[in-house]
Amino acid sequence: MIEASICTIGDEILIGQIVDTNSAAIARSLEEIGIKVGRTLSIGDDRGEIIGNLENELRISNIVISTGGLGPTKDDITKSALAEMSGSDAYVENPVQMEIIHDILRSRGLDILDINKAQALVPDTCEVIPNRLGTAPIMVFRFPEEKFGHPATLYSLPGVPFEAIGALPDVIEDIKNHNSLTDIFHKCVMVAGLAESALSKLIEPWEDSLPEDMHLAYLPNQLTGVRLRLSIYGGNKEDEERRIDERFAALQPILGDKIYSYSDDTLQNAVGALLRGTGKTLSAAESCTGGMISSLITSVPGASEYYLGSVTSYAVAVKEAVLGVGHDVVETYGVVSSEVAAAMAEGVRKLTGSTYSVATTGLAGPAGDERNPVGTVWIGVSGPHGTTTARRVYKNDRKRNIERFTSAALDELRLYILQDSKS
Amino acid sequence: MIEASICTIGDEILIGQIVDTNSAAIARSLEEIGIKVGRTLSIGDDRGEIIGNLENELRISNIVISTGGLGPTKDDITKSALAEMSGSDAYVENPVQMEIIHDILRSRGLDILDINKAQALVPDTCEVIPNRLGTAPIMVFRFPEEKFGHPATLYSLPGVPFEAIGALPDVIEDIKNHNSLTDIFHKCVMVAGLAESALSKLIEPWEDSLPEDMHLAYLPNQLTGVRLRLSIYGGNKEDEERRIDERFAALQPILGDKIYSYSDDTLQNAVGALLRGTGKTLSAAESCTGGMISSLITSVPGASEYYLGSVTSYAVAVKEAVLGVGHDVVETYGVVSSEVAAAMAEGVRKLTGSTYSVATTGLAGPAGDERNPVGTVWIGVSGPHGTTTARRVYKNDRKRNIERFTSAALDELRLYILQDSKS
Repeated sequence: MIEASICTIGDEILIGQIVDTNSAAIARSLEEIGIKVGRTLSIGDDRGEIIGNLENELRISNIVISTGGLGPTKDDITKSALAEMSGSDAYVENPVQMEIIHDILRSRGLDILDINKAQALVPDTCEVIPNRLGTAPIMVFRFPEEKFGHPATLYSLPGVPFEAIGALPDVIEDIKNHNSLTDIFHKCVMVAGLAESALSKLIEPWEDSLPEDMHLAYLPNQLTGVRLRLSIYGGNKEDEERRIDERFAALQPILGDKIYSYSDDTLQNAVGALLRGTGKTLSAAESCTGGMISSLITSVPGASEYYLGSVTSYAVAVKEAVLGVGHDVVETYGVVSSEVAAAMAEGVRKLTGSTYSVATTGLAGPAGDERNPVGTVWIGVSGPHGTTTARRVYKNDRKRNIERFTSAALDELRLYILQDSKS
Repeated sequence: MIEASICTIGDEILIGQIVDTNSAAIARSLEEIGIKVGRTLSIGDDRGEIIGNLENELRISNIVISTGGLGPTKDDITKSALAEMSGSDAYVENPVQMEIIHDILRSRGLDILDINKAQALVPDTCEVIPNRLGTAPIMVFRFPEEKFGHPATLYSLPGVPFEAIGALPDVIEDIKNHNSLTDIFHKCVMVAGLAESALSKLIEPWEDSLPEDMHLAYLPNQLTGVRLRLSIYGGNKEDEERRIDERFAALQPILGDKIYSYSDDTLQNAVGALLRGTGKTLSAAESCTGGMISSLITSVPGASEYYLGSVTSYAVAVKEAVLGVGHDVVETYGVVSSEVAAAMAEGVRKLTGSTYSVATTGLAGPAGDERNPVGTVWIGVSGPHGTTTARRVYKNDRKRNIERFTSAALDELRLYILQDSKS
């Protein structure tokens, strides 16, 4: 099996100024094509450290992907360290990247300085994959077997996540072209409304019946639920994907509508997919979630086709005056109640004239109240077939409770619309 | 100088399933007490890998902090690897942690199983720092000089970020108690409304006049602006902090109200600090920011004291019907205009009866419109002294544009309230 290492370069990671998100994105792409990441490493902008650590990783792994240290300023020394490491004493200009540099600076209305032009210069020991999203090209160093005891390739990517992640498809393509990889076939389903442990218990018989050559992975996420992925190594794409589809078909009767997508997806996207093209619309009323439901719904490009808007009614007075929640309802049942969740959902639906609406009222923390423990949320969903409510209780801190409330509300909304579109 | 390594353990990082946020949090805490992190490393749940890599790091660094692999299930093998590595053949029960385990499970209404109890067992070669937020204790292994060529200490923390970060203060305290660290004094100011490069240019003369023993760091963040930090190694706390304060006092006339805090802070907190205890209140009207302003304001515990709520008016009809933005205003000036931003701010202020309000209307992407390029936002702020608007244009992708819009809107709001409270 081909092994890889990932190495991020930059002092800003070692002082904790930024969280390294590149490694996870790269690891995920490599894992998808069946390459095992043995370890990831973060090191500083120090020539000796860069050379020493990269050489060490190239001894362990066939593929090393580094990010960072390619900026135009003096403290970015990765390129010259790589030149030294690969025995280059001459830089050559890459014309494709030079053109991109010109385009980028022109579009920003900036003059092209010598330090910008220098970014198109690369050691003559490397190949270049152009970076269309930034000025520093991707450098590919292929080392002969005798250098590290096995064929080894180093890909040097820029550190800016937007650029590094943008370059990944080309890098993965290059890896596939230069290595005889066993084909690997994945398909996944997204499951909402079940914790990993409960899901695992529920599908145990199905899981036990999987053939030996199929591998199941549970990939849980706070906001999007659990992604279940089936993988097969080797074989014929059409046949293997059909075999996976058959297994997922057998899973459907067990999980039903808890499956919300057959590709890597989010709940806000699934809601959008149910509404897009139907002419139906959506609104939200948020209390404890404070705007996060609306924020996620509008993170989907094109949401303006079906999303009308929301009211965050943090104060009781806004619940009453803007959403029309009855003062007596709040008095009788308390703010965190089924009745208030329902009235909020109905209120925002009336206010905006939307087909559907979702509402939340709860206690994210730090404190509960006399009626409900901290972590309680009431969710209301309203639409042409009436209003439904649901209560959930989570045991997290404030930040994570808000995320769980949001995810649960989007899922209740999805189930309502789904039910409605079937009837 | 004492050097440290950070090592996160767990297959889920190497397949890219989760982003490692622990390393940045730990690195930041170490940096604050003047300990240099030489590198960080992520490895899988493999006994050989764990022992080999940790021993290697202990040879390089005096302090190694690991997280992860301490769960109750079979695939978490860090503890037994550490027992082997430290030459332990006996486990002892830690009574403090056992009590915490009982408390945690009782509060969740769960029975205590043998695998839960086993978490209070630790190798007899380690000391324990109790983990008050979870079931797995922090293990501290102090190795004699002869083992790795220098005194070396390994701290093994749980992998759950909430628990790892919660344990950090105790770990840092232990490091301070067992090492003769040079005192390091930091103070910082938070600066909003200036990009790092513009800020750097503006304060160049001030920066050049800093004494040799003061170190300046620029720590930029998309949502909170630039954190400027001055550090001094060694000396007397009172004297050095006074010297730093004097330098910041000299910075004040240059940056004025662009400085929003003299501690590590956020814009939503700064806004809250201006409102708390004044009886004044706040509301928001969001279009392109989709709920993120409201979400950030409500992320501050206790925001309900001053925050009434918001309207996300994604559809023009909601801008008109709920916020009372004139149809003719939209027709004449376009949705993304100073006039609509002002009308939205005034509308939500009237609707909720708040003292202040903030509004956004813009184009986050992917596309612009005939009047404005993508990345344009108009911000409106309204209050007792009238309504002001501001236009900003950013060149990022949709997600980052929304963040920049949000940050700029919170800053405009802050400046308005500040001005208002001075007059």
